[in-house]
Amino acid sequence: MKKMTASQFRQASGSSFGQTNNGILDEKVLRIISDVQKNGDTALLRLTEELDGIRLRTLQVTEDEFQEAEASVSDSFHTALRTAGKNIETFHAGQMEQSWFMNPDLGVTLGQKVSPIERVGVYIPGGKASYPSSVLMNIIPAKLAGVKDITVTTPPDEHGNISPHVLAAARVAGADTVYKVGGAQAIAALAYGTETIKKAFKIVGPGNTYVARAKKWVFGDVAVDMIAGPSEICIVADETANPAFAAADLLSQAEHDEQARPLLVTPSSHIADAVQGEISRQIEKLERKKIIRQSLDQNGRMIVTESLAEALDIANLIAPEHLQLMIREPFENLAAITNAGAIFLGNYSPEPLGDYAAGPNHTLPTSGTAAFSSPLGVYDFMKKSSIIHYQRDALRNVSETVTSLAKAEGLTAHAQSIQIRKDENDAKTDD
Amino acid sequence: MKKMTASQFRQASGSSFGQTNNGILDEKVLRIISDVQKNGDTALLRLTEELDGIRLRTLQVTEDEFQEAEASVSDSFHTALRTAGKNIETFHAGQMEQSWFMNPDLGVTLGQKVSPIERVGVYIPGGKASYPSSVLMNIIPAKLAGVKDITVTTPPDEHGNISPHVLAAARVAGADTVYKVGGAQAIAALAYGTETIKKAFKIVGPGNTYVARAKKWVFGDVAVDMIAGPSEICIVADETANPAFAAADLLSQAEHDEQARPLLVTPSSHIADAVQGEISRQIEKLERKKIIRQSLDQNGRMIVTESLAEALDIANLIAPEHLQLMIREPFENLAAITNAGAIFLGNYSPEPLGDYAAGPNHTLPTSGTAAFSSPLGVYDFMKKSSIIHYQRDALRNVSETVTSLAKAEGLTAHAQSIQIRKDENDAKTDD
Repeated sequence: MKKMTASQFRQASGSSFGQTNNGILDEKVLRIISDVQKNGDTALLRLTEELDGIRLRTLQVTEDEFQEAEASVSDSFHTALRTAGKNIETFHAGQMEQSWFMNPDLGVTLGQKVSPIERVGVYIPGGKASYPSSVLMNIIPAKLAGVKDITVTTPPDEHGNISPHVLAAARVAGADTVYKVGGAQAIAALAYGTETIKKAFKIVGPGNTYVARAKKWVFGDVAVDMIAGPSEICIVADETANPAFAAADLLSQAEHDEQARPLLVTPSSHIADAVQGEISRQIEKLERKKIIRQSLDQNGRMIVTESLAEALDIANLIAPEHLQLMIREPFENLAAITNAGAIFLGNYSPEPLGDYAAGPNHTLPTSGTAAFSSPLGVYDFMKKSSIIHYQRDALRNVSETVTSLAKAEGLTAHAQSIQIRKDENDAKTDD
Repeated sequence: MKKMTASQFRQASGSSFGQTNNGILDEKVLRIISDVQKNGDTALLRLTEELDGIRLRTLQVTEDEFQEAEASVSDSFHTALRTAGKNIETFHAGQMEQSWFMNPDLGVTLGQKVSPIERVGVYIPGGKASYPSSVLMNIIPAKLAGVKDITVTTPPDEHGNISPHVLAAARVAGADTVYKVGGAQAIAALAYGTETIKKAFKIVGPGNTYVARAKKWVFGDVAVDMIAGPSEICIVADETANPAFAAADLLSQAEHDEQARPLLVTPSSHIADAVQGEISRQIEKLERKKIIRQSLDQNGRMIVTESLAEALDIANLIAPEHLQLMIREPFENLAAITNAGAIFLGNYSPEPLGDYAAGPNHTLPTSGTAAFSSPLGVYDFMKKSSIIHYQRDALRNVSETVTSLAKAEGLTAHAQSIQIRKDENDAKTDD
């Protein structure tokens, strides 16, 4: 990992325009979306044959397939799913929001009604890996929010099968239906509906570049969760950090893929060197060491700061997806942290704990977007409606305010809607 | 307004793909964005000369300009601004969110830290009309959330001036800086920063198609509020509705622009006819009757249903920006409403009241997006970070869950990050 000072790091970081037209990729994605809009299930089956190499007869996973999957996974995996599921539910229950109202004046009731989104689509990546943890993390908050219909789409393998781990997790989490379809075509189906797949109002879940790009295109017609970039960890360590632990955590982040960003920020040059030594020692034993080495070489950074305060400043500048505070007083320093997806405190709260089992969501804002967005949560599956009730006299009291502002904006029919009620009111009062 | 049955209306409504590539408009917008990214203030000044017809020397509104604006608006306008501002603040204070934590098990602390977004950009349209109410509605919730830096951009007129109403409102609401720049160039400046304008982390506020498209393109690099479509009102009326009031409210909605959608849904054909009669009578006196007539003819609908329950179902299908319940028991029927931006109850809570003075936000989801999104609120200017702290023994208790799931996903370095702590733990326990 490259070692540098805080000011060197500040100079090297800057914002780039990542969201412009993406040429051929966009063309392909837009063609797929319009194909699915026009041809529905026929397009889905054809595209699945072309892109996933399997001619399916039906898209929906059957009850038999579910039971087979559940029978094929180990007992210990089942137990792990249930434990993780329980912890995820406990934490997310803390996010539940209530409708409320207030009476700020005589004759005035204002409020906010909270209601679940009716139908949600969850995309789960397939291919070589399987992500049962993503199934739990995306579905459980939606269930808690009261979403009535949760549809999962995930690409089949070349034999037309879905990972049994994913199916077992979908069952534990409470998905209503699982369809064997992936890529941009799955996002199009969820956004606009087909004969088989009902239109969703929000689409969540991770995916490859096709999926991410399709989500960007359908955004607006339907809500989407964040468009995730490469995963990252930022460990802020002082001399109380265990270097072997910090190294293991940086390595775990690096194994995701070559783009993953493992960062260590420390006021202690000694700790930086000790972590570097542990990385060299531990990496040899790891299965995915080729990916890890590339991630560390290309994106890994050790930033040595003047002080702990400067290290925390750098963390805020990075706005990391995962922030580990391996420092003497992690709780006491929380006030200094303004930008982070999830904050892990102390030597015994490693990032993989949050990925799988602690309870908070592992779908987190990446690439600095923690400066303006939040972990996936129950609040992502609910929406609010404002409530306004004025009695006749209360409206009269505020009518000059409304008409003055409406007239300043040249909207005289707006003023008239108030005036017609005032005239009636005055007529009655004159009685 | 066209009169139809509920089933005719259902058949005519369907989803369309509105978010695809937009040809020439997108080309122009992308060229402007990359111009501003490359050339900063120089590009802003050049584009303002080209597009707004004024060569400015500086972009920032001066203290002298503010004072001149404040002196030029009427006392009654000032009073209206302050009354509306107070009401907006009172309602939005109800939306404040608290950080929280829980201790679900011995040795486990989980939580959610809520913090304001650091810098926010607010776009306010200019041109012929001026929108002081939008200034209040966008800035006050951001202030309440604790946003440190609120930058307003708004296009200058051909003399290089900004509406005094807008400047007076910016002062009341508490904007930090106002810049004279509009269009896609303003959005690019807020998204990426220039020498003068600091990069914002979120951009909010209404705008024309250039602004809306630019917001769609920068989305992801920066957060944006909703991309608003034409304004709409849906009045659900029974025989207790005052037809003259309902007509005035439909007309007020129609005056926004030709695309505005005024809808009446009623189980009473008699009420539909009475409202129609009132519309014909009232329209003649209105200044903007040309726009109103086009809106009514093209987009106005009177939907006559079998029952009140069906009328409420139709309202949920429409998911209107503004929903007026002019019915006998509006509160009692709130439970049946699942999709609406703002809900106005009874005969004395007309939509223009909410536009200007009631308190709830007038930035609302349009075009059916209330099915999955919420009014602008304090929550739009805050973000959450998850907090995870496990003590050593607590981590050991959950270690099998983590390693079982990590191994199922093929992420063995993740499992190792837990294992290395367990090994140390076991070694200590053996002591």
